[in-house]
Amino acid sequence: MRVTVSRKAHFNAAHRLYRKDWSMEKNDAVFGKCNNPNFHGHNYELTVSVTGEIDQKTGYVIDTKILADLIKEHIENTFDHKNLNLDVPEFADLNPTAENIVVVIWQKLRKYIDANKDLEIILYETPRNFVTYNGN
Amino acid sequence: MRVTVSRKAHFNAAHRLYRKDWSMEKNDAVFGKCNNPNFHGHNYELTVSVTGEIDQKTGYVIDTKILADLIKEHIENTFDHKNLNLDVPEFADLNPTAENIVVVIWQKLRKYIDANKDLEIILYETPRNFVTYNGN
Amino acid sequence: MRVTVSRKAHFNAAHRLYRKDWSMEKNDAVFGKCNNPNFHGHNYELTVSVTGEIDQKTGYVIDTKILADLIKEHIENTFDHKNLNLDVPEFADLNPTAENIVVVIWQKLRKYIDANKDLEIILYETPRNFVTYNGN
Amino acid sequence: MRVTVSRKAHFNAAHRLYRKDWSMEKNDAVFGKCNNPNFHGHNYELTVSVTGEIDQKTGYVIDTKILADLIKEHIENTFDHKNLNLDVPEFADLNPTAENIVVVIWQKLRKYIDANKDLEIILYETPRNFVTYNGN
Amino acid sequence: MRVTVSRKAHFNAAHRLYRKDWSMEKNDAVFGKCNNPNFHGHNYELTVSVTGEIDQKTGYVIDTKILADLIKEHIENTFDHKNLNLDVPEFADLNPTAENIVVVIWQKLRKYIDANKDLEIILYETPRNFVTYNGN
Amino acid sequence: MRVTVSRKAHFNAAHRLYRKDWSMEKNDAVFGKCNNPNFHGHNYELTVSVTGEIDQKTGYVIDTKILADLIKEHIENTFDHKNLNLDVPEFADLNPTAENIVVVIWQKLRKYIDANKDLEIILYETPRNFVTYNGN
Repeated sequence: MRVTVSRKAHFNAAHRLYRKDWSMEKNDAVFGKCNNPNFHGHNYELTVSVTGEIDQKTGYVIDTKILADLIKEHIENTFDHKNLNLDVPEFADLNPTAENIVVVIWQKLRKYIDANKDLEIILYETPRNFVTYNGN
Repeated sequence: MRVTVSRKAHFNAAHRLYRKDWSMEKNDAVFGKCNNPNFHGHNYELTVSVTGEIDQKTGYVIDTKILADLIKEHIENTFDHKNLNLDVPEFADLNPTAENIVVVIWQKLRKYIDANKDLEIILYETPRNFVTYNGN
Repeated sequence: MRVTVSRKAHFNAAHRLYRKDWSMEKNDAVFGKCNNPNFHGHNYELTVSVTGEIDQKTGYVIDTKILADLIKEHIENTFDHKNLNLDVPEFADLNPTAENIVVVIWQKLRKYIDANKDLEIILYETPRNFVTYNGN
Repeated sequence: MRVTVSRKAHFNAAHRLYRKDWSMEKNDAVFGKCNNPNFHGHNYELTVSVTGEIDQKTGYVIDTKILADLIKEHIENTFDHKNLNLDVPEFADLNPTAENIVVVIWQKLRKYIDANKDLEIILYETPRNFVTYNGN
Repeated sequence: MRVTVSRKAHFNAAHRLYRKDWSMEKNDAVFGKCNNPNFHGHNYELTVSVTGEIDQKTGYVIDTKILADLIKEHIENTFDHKNLNLDVPEFADLNPTAENIVVVIWQKLRKYIDANKDLEIILYETPRNFVTYNGN
Repeated sequence: MRVTVSRKAHFNAAHRLYRKDWSMEKNDAVFGKCNNPNFHGHNYELTVSVTGEIDQKTGYVIDTKILADLIKEHIENTFDHKNLNLDVPEFADLNPTAENIVVVIWQKLRKYIDANKDLEIILYETPRNFVTYNGN
C-alpha cells in the first residue's frame, strides 16, 4: 500500500533567462522578453510529493510537518526573495528556466528523503505554466 | 484508448490523530496539536478518478452522474458532518490520518468500479496537504 | 488616497451548531446534521482587510508582516486545531455559526488596528459558503 | 532527465450529447439534460503537458510560447465560441462527450510534438468533472 | 451587527449575443465571435450574498440550506443545461449579456429575500470575466 | 441599474522595496527581505472593475474586449517582464509597494474610462496578499 503525500509551498524570486556565452541578439531571439537585463520575477508555487509505504505505527508515510520543514530549510530559505541568477549558486552558470529550477529543487531535496521512497516536484512559474520532475 | 474520468466531491468532518495504546505524552510528541482530545476538523476535498476504455455506444468511460452518485452514497453519506473517530466504524481502531482515510475511501469504492477499470483517489486535508492512492 | 490591504490566513477547527437551552429535537430541526453531538469540522479560510491612508514614508497602509503576526497571535493560535465549542471561551454560550465566528474575529482584531483605519473580515466555512463583517 | 512542461488554455463552446441513430427517448434516458436539443455549454479548461529531455542549450523541453501558439492555432481557433456538434467536423458523427473531446484534442496536437516526446491532455468540462488522455 | 452570508452555485448554459433587429453584419461588428448563430456556452459561476442582522436565536442571518434551495429552485432549475436565448423566457427579447443575466437573477431572487435584507449577485461568465449587481 | 463589470489580467515583474534616501540598515529594518539589492519578483494578478449603467442597445456596461485591450496596452505592455524600480518611470522615485502600484494602475486607467463610470483595481502581489483602490 504505497500512498503519495503532497505538500504545497511557494517562494517569490527574480530571474532572467539568458546564456552568458551568447550575444544579446541571440538571447533576445531565443528568450524574448524573459531576457530583460534588469530581471523580472514570479511567485513560484511548489508541490512536493513523497510516495512510500504507510508506517503502521503512526499512519503516516511522512509527517507533513517534517516535509514542510525540509522545504522551508532547503528551498524557501535559499530561493525566497532572491535573484536566482545572482543569489543562488546553482544558477551561476545554469539558465534558470522552470525546467532547470525543478531539477535543482529535486536534487536538493532527494538526499533528505528515504531511499525507498519516491520524490516528485511540480513547479508553477505562473498560474498557466508549470513543470514536473520525478528523477526519471 | 484508455481515458481517465475524474469527479470532485467533498465532506466536512472532525477527527483526532492518536493511538489508544499510547500515552498522552507519546501521542503529543508524535501528533502534536492534531492530538487535541476535543477534536479539530477539516473540509476534505476528494478527486475520484476512473480509467478505462471509452464505451463506443455512449462515448463515456463512466457516466459522471453514476460516479457522483456512488461517491455520495458510499463516501459523503458516511463521512460528511461526522466525527471520523467516533462515527465511522473503519476508524474505531485505525488512526484517521489522511493516508489511512484515502486507503479506506479507495477500498469502499473499488468494489463498485468494473474490474477492468483502474481507480485512483486524491484527498485534500487542507489546501496545502493532500494524499493520493491507486491500489498499488 | 485610502487603499485596502488584505491578508489571507486559515485555521482548522471542530464545531457543533446547537443551543444548550433547546431540546435535541429542536436543535435537529433547526441545525440538521450540523448538530452532530460528536462534532464535525472545517478548514476555515480567512481574509482580513484593513483600509487606510498610505504612509508616505513607507508606502504601506499596514505592513503585511505585522498584519500576518496579529492574525497568527490572536486568531490562529486560539482557533487552529481547536474545538470551537469546548476550547474557545467566546463560544461557551454562543452558537459558533459562521456569522457569530466572523463577528468574534472582528472584535478580537479591532483593538489592534488604528482607530482611523477600517477593518473587514471574510470567513469561508466551506469553499461555497462564506460570511463578511465590517463592524457596521 | 525527462521533465514535463504543462500549459493551461481554455475555450468556451456549446454542445449536445446524443446519437442521431437513437430515439429522443433513448437519448434522454442515457444523456439526461445533456440531450437538450437547443444545446448547453461550458468553459472548457485545458492542460497540455509535453514530456521530454531538457535541451542543454536553452534549458527548455519546449518553449511555452511555441506550445501556447500550437494550442491557440489548432485548438482555441477551431473550438472557441463554437458549437461542437455543428461547427467542428470531428464531431459531425462523434458524440462530443468530454472523453471524445480529449482524444480529438490529443490527436490534433500529437503531430506537432516531437516523436521522442510524450503528450498528455487534461480537459475540465466543469470545475468538478475532468478527463485525461495520454495516447495509451 | 449586519453580516453578509454568501453562497456559491453554478449552471452550464449556451447563449448567443445578438439583437434580432440588427443585421448580421452589425451584430458581428458589435458582438464578434459571441454572435455565432450556432451558439457557444459557459460554466456560469454564481455568488449570492444576503446582508442582514444576525438572528439572536439561531445565530444565522439566513440558513445557507434555505439560500441554496432558493438558488436551486429559481436559478439552477431554470438556467442549467439550457439555451438562454431559446429556453429562458426572460431572454426572448433581451440580449443575454452577463450584465443582463445578473440583473435577471437578482430580480428573480429579490422577492424571496426579506425586505430588510440586502441582496447582491456576482456572476462569473469565464474565470476572467465577471459582473456584480446589488439593485442600486 | 448600475452593474459592475470586472476583468482579470496579470503581469510578472521584479521589484525591490527601499528608499534611496535611507541607509541600507534602515531599509532592512523596515522592508526586511523585500530590500534584497538584487531584487525579487512576483506574478501580479489584477482585477479591473468598471461600474456604470447598462447600455440599452448592446446590453454592455463596457465591452470586456475593449477593457482587456486597455489593460493590455496601458498595464501589461508597460509592467510585464519588467523591473518596476528600473524600467517603469512612475517608480523612479516611488517605492513600488503593492499600495503604490495599485494607485499608479488606477491613475493610468482612469483617463480611459467614462467619467460617469466608477473604477476599482484589485492587485494580488501573492496568492495571500492583495490591495484594493477605487479613487476615494
